[in-house]
Formats: sequence, C-alpha cells, structure tokens
Amino acid sequence: MPFDLERARNDTPGCRHVLHFNNAGSSLMPQPVLEATIAHLQLEAQIGGYEAVEAAHAVIEHSYDAVATLIRCARDEVAIVENATRAWDMAFYSIPFKPGDRILTAISEYASNYIAYLQIARKTGAVVEAIPNDEHGQVSVEALRQMLGERDNHTRLIAITHVPTNGGLVNPVAAIGKLAREHGILYLVDACQSIGQMPIDVNDIGCDMLSATGRKYLRGPRGTGFLYVRRDILDRLEPPLLDMHAATWIAPDRYEMRPDARRFENWETNYAGKVGLGVAIDYALQWGLDDTWRRVRSLAYQLRSQLSPLPGVIVHDRGVIQCGIVTFTVEGHDPQQIQLALAQQHINVSVSERSGTLLDMDARGLKSMVRASVHYYNSEEEVERFCAAIAGLL
Amino acid sequence: MPFDLERARNDTPGCRHVLHFNNAGSSLMPQPVLEATIAHLQLEAQIGGYEAVEAAHAVIEHSYDAVATLIRCARDEVAIVENATRAWDMAFYSIPFKPGDRILTAISEYASNYIAYLQIARKTGAVVEAIPNDEHGQVSVEALRQMLGERDNHTRLIAITHVPTNGGLVNPVAAIGKLAREHGILYLVDACQSIGQMPIDVNDIGCDMLSATGRKYLRGPRGTGFLYVRRDILDRLEPPLLDMHAATWIAPDRYEMRPDARRFENWETNYAGKVGLGVAIDYALQWGLDDTWRRVRSLAYQLRSQLSPLPGVIVHDRGVIQCGIVTFTVEGHDPQQIQLALAQQHINVSVSERSGTLLDMDARGLKSMVRASVHYYNSEEEVERFCAAIAGLL
Repeated sequence: MPFDLERARNDTPGCRHVLHFNNAGSSLMPQPVLEATIAHLQLEAQIGGYEAVEAAHAVIEHSYDAVATLIRCARDEVAIVENATRAWDMAFYSIPFKPGDRILTAISEYASNYIAYLQIARKTGAVVEAIPNDEHGQVSVEALRQMLGERDNHTRLIAITHVPTNGGLVNPVAAIGKLAREHGILYLVDACQSIGQMPIDVNDIGCDMLSATGRKYLRGPRGTGFLYVRRDILDRLEPPLLDMHAATWIAPDRYEMRPDARRFENWETNYAGKVGLGVAIDYALQWGLDDTWRRVRSLAYQLRSQLSPLPGVIVHDRGVIQCGIVTFTVEGHDPQQIQLALAQQHINVSVSERSGTLLDMDARGLKSMVRASVHYYNSEEEVERFCAAIAGLL
Repeated sequence: MPFDLERARNDTPGCRHVLHFNNAGSSLMPQPVLEATIAHLQLEAQIGGYEAVEAAHAVIEHSYDAVATLIRCARDEVAIVENATRAWDMAFYSIPFKPGDRILTAISEYASNYIAYLQIARKTGAVVEAIPNDEHGQVSVEALRQMLGERDNHTRLIAITHVPTNGGLVNPVAAIGKLAREHGILYLVDACQSIGQMPIDVNDIGCDMLSATGRKYLRGPRGTGFLYVRRDILDRLEPPLLDMHAATWIAPDRYEMRPDARRFENWETNYAGKVGLGVAIDYALQWGLDDTWRRVRSLAYQLRSQLSPLPGVIVHDRGVIQCGIVTFTVEGHDPQQIQLALAQQHINVSVSERSGTLLDMDARGLKSMVRASVHYYNSEEEVERFCAAIAGLL
C-alpha cells in the first residue's frame, strides 16, 4: 500500500503554514492530538480540574496502555511524567552510586545527561567514561566489550542515547544491551529522538530503563514524557524526589513507596498533555512504526542526496543506519543565520550547538550545525523546496 | 466599590455547569486563562513547538514578571516549573543536610513534604521535628522559639505550609520568618494553598524560598507551579537534578550552573501552561488580592456559619484567621459518600484523607473530612444551595 501522504498532511494543520523540518525539536501535532488536548482543558474549565480527571479516567489510564503497546512492556512498568529529561532524571538519579562505580556512556551523549553524570560523579565518587566510537561514528560495541573486560565489577551503569541529537546516526542499542545483560549491568536508554521515528521494543533492546518524550517524533504535546522501568529492577532504585503519589505516609516516621513504576511520577501533572500523549501514541501506531521508519529514512536520504552536491554544503551525518535527522554546515554561513533566513521563508530547522554534544562536536572540530529533521508527513516536494532555499542562500 | 460578582461569574464558564467548592483542589479557570492556554497550543500546532516559543517570547517572559509582581520579588529569583510539588522539591532537595541537622516543620504539614523529610532524614541523618501547635491549632511561634533556644546550631531548615490542605487555618509565617532570620536558619514556605487566595509578600514573610501552584487559588492551568529563591542564598543550594537549561556543559569534565533561579527549572516544559499561568496571575492581580482575600473569608464565614447548626455536622476548622478552606464531617455519613452524593447534584468538593496530614489527623482523631473550598467567584446563593444540599443528605 503506498503511503497516504495526503491524509497525513490533511491531518496536520501546520502543513498549511510552515515547511517543518524541526521534528527532532518539536514536531507538528496532528489534529486529533491538538483536539484531545484542548478538549481536556475545556473540560477542566467546565467541570473542574479534579473532576475532569474523574470523568476522563479511562482515557488517562489508556495512555499507560498506549505506551506499553508502543514499547512492548507492561503498563505497571510505565511512568508518565512532565518531559523526557525528568523521565531520564528519575531513572538516573535513582541509582545508588558508590565511589569508584563506572558510568559508561557515548561520545555523542547529550549535554543534559552528561551534566547529570558529572554532578553525580562529583557527589558520589563515581567515574564517567565515554565509550569510543567505531569507524561509523556509532558507539563501538567492541570497545565497550573491551572496557568491560572479562569480569568487570565496577561498571554500575551503561547509559546511551539511542539517536543522538545530531549526526543522523542510530546507536546499536540492542548489541549494547546484550553486553549489559551478560555482565549484569544496569542499562538506561535515552530514546528521546528515536521514539515515534522507528519501532522500539524494550525486550529487543534489553534495557532496564528507557526514557522518551512526547513532543518530537511522537507528535504529542509539549510538556509530556515517559519512563519505562523493568519490573525486576524497581526495588534497586529509589526515586530522588518522593511525594504522596510516589509513596504513602503510613506512620509518623514511615512511608511506603508505590509498588509500580508510578513511583517515578508526582501527584500533580499536566493532564491535558497526558491525554494528548495517549492520542499521539495511538495515532503513531495507526500509521505503523515500520512504515513511518521506512518513509522517514527515505525522505532523509533524499535530503542528504540533494544537499550534498550544493557548493560549500557539508552533510555531517554518520552511522550505518541513518535516521530522519540531517545535520550540515554551509561554508561561510553561520548556522544561526541560515536558520533565520529559512525562517523568513517559513521553513523551520534547529541549530545544534557545541555545548549540546560537547565531546562529539569537539572531536569533530565543529562549533555548530544546521539540523533539518524530517517526518513521514513531510513531502518530497518539501525536500526539493528546502534544498532550493539553501541553494538560494549561497 | 462593591464586588462585581456578575463579571467574575461571566468570566468563568464553569459556573454554568457546576457549583465548584473545590478551589483548594483545582479552581475553575477563567475564560482568559483558558483562551490563552489553548491559543498557545494552537500556535504550536500551526507553526511548530519551538517556533511558538520564539513567537510568544515576550508573553512567556512576562510570566516571570507576573510572578515577581505577585509575590514582590525580582524576576531572576523566580523559577517556573511543572507543579508546586516539584517547585518545593527543587528547593528542599537542594539543601545539603548533614547528620544531626534539624528540620523543623508543622504538625499540619502536608504528606508530600513530610515524606520528603523522612526520605532525606534516612539518607543524610538529619532529624525531623514537628513544632507544637498553639491553642488555635496553628504553629506555635512560642514553641518554635523554645525549640531554637538561645543559640541553636543544629536547625538547618524551618519548612512550613502557609495554609494547610485542610483545617481552614493560616499559619503565622511572618512571625516564624522573624525567628528564622534572627537565628540565620533557612526558611522554606509552601504557599500552595495560600497563593491567589490572599496577598503574599516574600519580604513580609521573610522566607528564603517559597513554592506555589497555578491550579488552585490562582485559577491557572494544571501542570504549572513556581518557586521563589532569594538571590542571596542561591549559591548555598544545589539543584538535585541538573540539565542543559539549569547548567551549561563547558568542558569535558565541567559544567556551570545558571546564575539565576532558573537553575531549578529544566529545559522542556509545558509552554501553554506557562503562558496560561502568566495570564492567571495578571487576572488575579486585576481583581486585587486584598479584595479577593476579603471576599473569600466572608464566603467561608457564611459557609461555616450555615453548616455548623445542621444536625450532626461538625466543622473542624481552627486558626485565628480562617481562610477559604472549610472542612467538616457529618455524623453517620462517610465523607466519600457525601462527595459522591454532592457530585450527583453537580456540586464539587474534595475529601481530605488521614494520610494527607497524618500527624494532624491522628492528633485530632480524624480519619477523613469533607473539604469545601470557596473562591471569590462563588456566590452567597451557592453557599445557601450547598448547605441545603448537605441538609438534604441528613
């Protein structure tokens, strides 16, 4: 069955206003997500915020089922929180690190995660080490194997970003997961940029924890994210922050944590967003993650192919499998200025700064790049128009 | 000038649907808040989530000015976060407690805070002590003075909920603040239930940190909250969670925290809510917090006066100054059943459970109570109707 681009674009009101190649920033919400989110806000204004939760109970609980279906886990292994950063935080900061514990991560790791590693390293005496890349710029599974050695007793955590914020690559998270399991090491995957872009199965990946956002490739509302925590490891983690939702106050000097992953949530939340997230996941599942992934790669391939021949344009993407994130520079043109010039033509991109992936950018001698990220609802014609716009700036 | 109830109710679409005495849970949003929140979501769907932040930059930044005006602080002392719990958490968990450090709090302290005290006490060896109440059920300033003694070297933090979740009272936060300053002790005020209900000036209170929510008496959207941190103490606090918004990754092994209170925020947020929060504060300021406070107390007084004579009804409120939160039980009627029966008549209340304020409820021999909380847009006629509905259940 050919991809129904017309339906995808008709469902996306933003398509009439912008050429949106900023899906890795925040995607355009489809109409059903927008409507569901707004409808819940209206319900809150109409009958009250708490009362709206009661009325929408089934819809809100469905969001947990939607996540569980999306990443193939059980619903009690899911926490829905305010964003991917806090989802990741609630997992990472829950790990009881001791002096000398190793945290192994990627060279292309995202700043928000790396700053957290450095903070915890300073506080606990744990050490952070970046696994070298392979020749494709991905995390080298072989290098990781060597770092772990025969009998590694110090590595406490392997934490990898599935799809780095720039560079176009997809890290080999399943191969890493196999090593993590063999060595009995906790494994945290940041799926912020991969969720909604490609099929994700936490069992295939073999991770203990996985964090994700709603606003990027899932096309959900801003201010939404979720965390998967494998049931078996729940009791090895203590949330860094606790409230009366995560725990119950049972005696003057005692509380009891929830028995499920919602111990990583807190009581109050953006319920309209939570409703919208569930609708966004259902919507993504309707399109099918296999089909989405195929189309995203195809559009990104077209984009790289048409950008590369332009004079002065250097596409900086690496990796064996390349995703919907296309990063490039243009000789003699500041990425910020390119972003601004494109914005004047209603074309949306992001700029990736050095401080976002400092180890990677420094290793590659880059200061900043333009990031153009495509989604399935983008058209081949938009790719043409985008490349013409870049050519027009030269 | 008489209070313009008609305008208040016309601005509040929910008034046509429900008798809302659950303002201490989540209030009914006025039309301007609802519209601004929805408009931002629509803008996100139209031009993109990041692009909407650019377009609404001034509006979003205005929310900081609105908070600063509301509580009389500087805009760089304000963090806007996902809810009051996380606002409070980011302050409390930032304090570097040592073994033996005392945390002094109230008997009526809220479970979410108390659970956090107990967690940190277990982790750090700090100790939690509840300051006895005075004869009115408020925190006893005299008892606190005695606990601090002449030269207290161990009390690290005084943390008080301004208006407890139930019980109707207002704690003497300014008198407590005076003692805290005299002894040079950090002072954290949870203003979740007081913000928007009465005038709040952080200088009058003399607190170092104050947390608040958007959804209750401020009538803002759910999933919004803010934290005030006095500029002078910023460097004594280290946020428990850090990301690339709170800090910048400046070298492979080094990051630098933001110089302002936004170090307690994280990068991604519910921007529609943030816009709505600013509008809600502006709207609250238009009505005037003095006028609001006068009207809220007057309605609550009427409610207590008309409830008390009903057979079997016991109003459990205490305090010298009583606020808009009215808590009561009805002999032979379970509070949950009363809530349900009222809901069938489109009347909204909450139920306060023992585990929400365990020390207080146990001390008073209470298991649960009905909580009816009034706001300025409620009418005298609604109070009559509410009491008639309760009488009808007897």
